[in-house]
Amino acid sequence: MISRRIDLHQAAELLKQQDNILILCHNYPDGDTLGSACALYRGLLCLGKKAKITCNMPLPSKFEFLFEGLPQEDFAHDFIVAVDIASLNLLGSSLQQYAKKIDLCIDHHKSNTGYAKELLLDFSAAATTEIVTQLLGKMGVEITPIIADCLYTGICTDTGCFNHSNVTAETHKCAAYLIERGAKAAYINEVMFGTKSKARIAVERILMQNMEYHFDGRCALTHISEQEIEVSGAKQSDLDGLSAIPLQIEGVKVSVYIRQTGKAKHKLSIRTRSGYDASKICSILGGGGHEAAAGCEIEAPLQETIDQILRVVEEQIK
Amino acid sequence: MISRRIDLHQAAELLKQQDNILILCHNYPDGDTLGSACALYRGLLCLGKKAKITCNMPLPSKFEFLFEGLPQEDFAHDFIVAVDIASLNLLGSSLQQYAKKIDLCIDHHKSNTGYAKELLLDFSAAATTEIVTQLLGKMGVEITPIIADCLYTGICTDTGCFNHSNVTAETHKCAAYLIERGAKAAYINEVMFGTKSKARIAVERILMQNMEYHFDGRCALTHISEQEIEVSGAKQSDLDGLSAIPLQIEGVKVSVYIRQTGKAKHKLSIRTRSGYDASKICSILGGGGHEAAAGCEIEAPLQETIDQILRVVEEQIK
Repeated sequence: MISRRIDLHQAAELLKQQDNILILCHNYPDGDTLGSACALYRGLLCLGKKAKITCNMPLPSKFEFLFEGLPQEDFAHDFIVAVDIASLNLLGSSLQQYAKKIDLCIDHHKSNTGYAKELLLDFSAAATTEIVTQLLGKMGVEITPIIADCLYTGICTDTGCFNHSNVTAETHKCAAYLIERGAKAAYINEVMFGTKSKARIAVERILMQNMEYHFDGRCALTHISEQEIEVSGAKQSDLDGLSAIPLQIEGVKVSVYIRQTGKAKHKLSIRTRSGYDASKICSILGGGGHEAAAGCEIEAPLQETIDQILRVVEEQIK
Repeated sequence: MISRRIDLHQAAELLKQQDNILILCHNYPDGDTLGSACALYRGLLCLGKKAKITCNMPLPSKFEFLFEGLPQEDFAHDFIVAVDIASLNLLGSSLQQYAKKIDLCIDHHKSNTGYAKELLLDFSAAATTEIVTQLLGKMGVEITPIIADCLYTGICTDTGCFNHSNVTAETHKCAAYLIERGAKAAYINEVMFGTKSKARIAVERILMQNMEYHFDGRCALTHISEQEIEVSGAKQSDLDGLSAIPLQIEGVKVSVYIRQTGKAKHKLSIRTRSGYDASKICSILGGGGHEAAAGCEIEAPLQETIDQILRVVEEQIK
């Protein structure tokens, strides 16, 4: 199926006509998928509608505040919205039942595969919440402080706190708008970026120990096993954003972060500097994402996984 | 001397009347003092005036781009402006000759001691360049891409890339305005925050090794000696922003970073979470700064320095 592309006005009209709305978040949920879902949920509630959110994975504790005060209703849904989900494999196993029934997708990934009936896509947006901010405006929803918190969370997490190359003047204007409407930016920044647990520090040390350099230092690769994660005492939330670490090293153009997710199964996150396309690298291995940040999964033991990814990286880097 | 407080309009008129202007930066120059100085210098050049910049310390290489294409003129100055300098001791030894002759100070530090004849102070601004952005507008200077780069550099470095609690809606609006005028935000973020040299990584490891916890983990303290810096191969630019590291640890309210600067001499940087006043702690020891980030110097061997600062921290933390 190829989606019909719609604009903000059409998406607002569509949502205003619906009720009993199920909102889907992507697997390994982050601040943008959860922030988008919670802001949309709250907006729909303001308009007197019923909504609920579902995700294949449990909620990382640092995102719990986004859900504060939201009713946990159960009802038969009539309309399904996917937020910040580029392709169906990112739904995770328990949400595959909805794969062919998604009515609307709101997303900012260039690599969106067009799986939903209708698609509101703006890949100039740094975060899906940047789009949702405009959408709620078109829907006539008043941006309350907690909605502003949800929207700000998506923007700050998807931009590495306004650091990544996806940030535009519009991103900063959106942040200013949300802060003026009560977003607790300092609190959210502190929760998202400000503190590191001791387990997180242990995990970062492991990544430094396992760091490998390839292709004259232009590629840095590191990895963490299930056992190493267990020994460190890290929770899911301690593992967010680790993929940014190897890209920080001077001269590195392509970084690879490999996390073991099963006996012979690994999740890979590729980050690149401008001029190198992470999305291209990952799509060769069946994944996808953005030019500067993309991901894929490889079912193989560690060394074979490393060999596979390095062969693809070599093609792109030479 | 207590300065006369002036507003943006008055400061703009004052500068427009002057020529042959000497701009002073603070010791251990950072992105805000250098960005303010270079933006002001470029603005004065646009108005057909002569200007020059001086600093007690050599320019860290990552800030060299701010000075690109600026003429290095020598002339007798008629007017002295200090930018981002809260008190005279921050001039450093070679600039003390100007201490009593500063005509105008442009600053955002609440703790500014009022040493200049005229003072343009706005402590709601996250960075001095936020004030200089407005000032250049009042002076009728067109914000060119390189001026926007200088101004953006001050904002992003003084806010930890829009992360710290000093960021307001105005800060984001200013960033949007500068990006629209050509500030290369992604490039500047990469230079300021994006890459770590191997020496920097060595320095960070040393700080982790030397980390001490006090007062039930509410205070984290770490230190680095001249010898450790030498062994790591770190340059001045590898040592920027280290004071933020201990504050990142969960539960830490007050962080102390101590750097040896002489045989029995240490420079201390205090960072605090909201509710704790770094400026108050440092002013007891003869220093100053902001509520969330302040500094002082102690002339004593390491252990005595630690004992002194912990006695003051204990008073504030209990």
